[in-house]
Amino acid sequence: MTTDTSNDKVRFLRSLRAVREYTPEPIDEDVIKDIVEVGRWAGSSSNSQPTEVVVVRDRAALELMGANGAAPAAKCAVALLILTAGNADRRESEAFDNGRLVERLLLAAKAHGLGANIATLKNDGPEIVRKALGIPAEKKVWTVVTMGHIDREAHKARPANPNAGRKDASSFVHWEKY
Amino acid sequence: MTTDTSNDKVRFLRSLRAVREYTPEPIDEDVIKDIVEVGRWAGSSSNSQPTEVVVVRDRAALELMGANGAAPAAKCAVALLILTAGNADRRESEAFDNGRLVERLLLAAKAHGLGANIATLKNDGPEIVRKALGIPAEKKVWTVVTMGHIDREAHKARPANPNAGRKDASSFVHWEKY
Repeated sequence: MTTDTSNDKVRFLRSLRAVREYTPEPIDEDVIKDIVEVGRWAGSSSNSQPTEVVVVRDRAALELMGANGAAPAAKCAVALLILTAGNADRRESEAFDNGRLVERLLLAAKAHGLGANIATLKNDGPEIVRKALGIPAEKKVWTVVTMGHIDREAHKARPANPNAGRKDASSFVHWEKY
Repeated sequence: MTTDTSNDKVRFLRSLRAVREYTPEPIDEDVIKDIVEVGRWAGSSSNSQPTEVVVVRDRAALELMGANGAAPAAKCAVALLILTAGNADRRESEAFDNGRLVERLLLAAKAHGLGANIATLKNDGPEIVRKALGIPAEKKVWTVVTMGHIDREAHKARPANPNAGRKDASSFVHWEKY
């Protein structure tokens, strides 16, 4: 069953890591469009497609996000702000679909050799960003995917996070019964 | 920026589709472990790792899930039942991390040439399955990833779903402002 090709893909999936250190180099617009297109094909509950993306490159807007909880946005080339429909009866379902979308965006950025990270607008951040970007009142604003060309020296120099590991397989997976 | 390799990976990400038609052939245990290991390395909010997986191959348990909302489980080779920690203050965050995990599991199954689909336990389904599999009361039970070798004839014969498309890029992506 396992072929070289499946191993390559599995290695690609397994090697995804958050990258928050970016060079100032811009990202080609064709690459941004390609990454967003991978996101557009994300599956969703009953194909409800509750998600939308705002592509932000404007430095003032990136700094505003950076100052409101999504710190890596201040120094990234592009931030993808994720909106969900904001249906109060479907908050968990929309959050689940948001997670599916964001995982695809991170992987698509990695496929293009870029670094990416998930950041979160905090406190009044969602409302401040909503006003600045003209986002309708009903949309939920929460998640930011920051992206950029990787500053490899800064990335390597980041202190190792002692909490970056994962729990043992024996705590994560159960066979047949809990 | 775009290389053949990145194109291959992007094509892989873009071509993910739900597959609910499976042959009775079992899935090698090594392949199951490999798919679950891709899931174990899923990122999560502040690396809180709220998710766990129960691997279910027992036919009675699969049929129980199938009869309680997760219909494709009844005929799949393996179902991965996803549990989250069940912290009432972090419901949306846990649902988001669940979505990230599930997208990885679907992609890892695809990398191995398998079909996979997301199904949902409905009504009393979560409690019925919790009792049958000995899942602690605090864990949230909701999501099932069904997997199997693809029954290509049945998959092709499935009536086309007129609602399976995606909204236009112009409705999904906004540039700089909404």
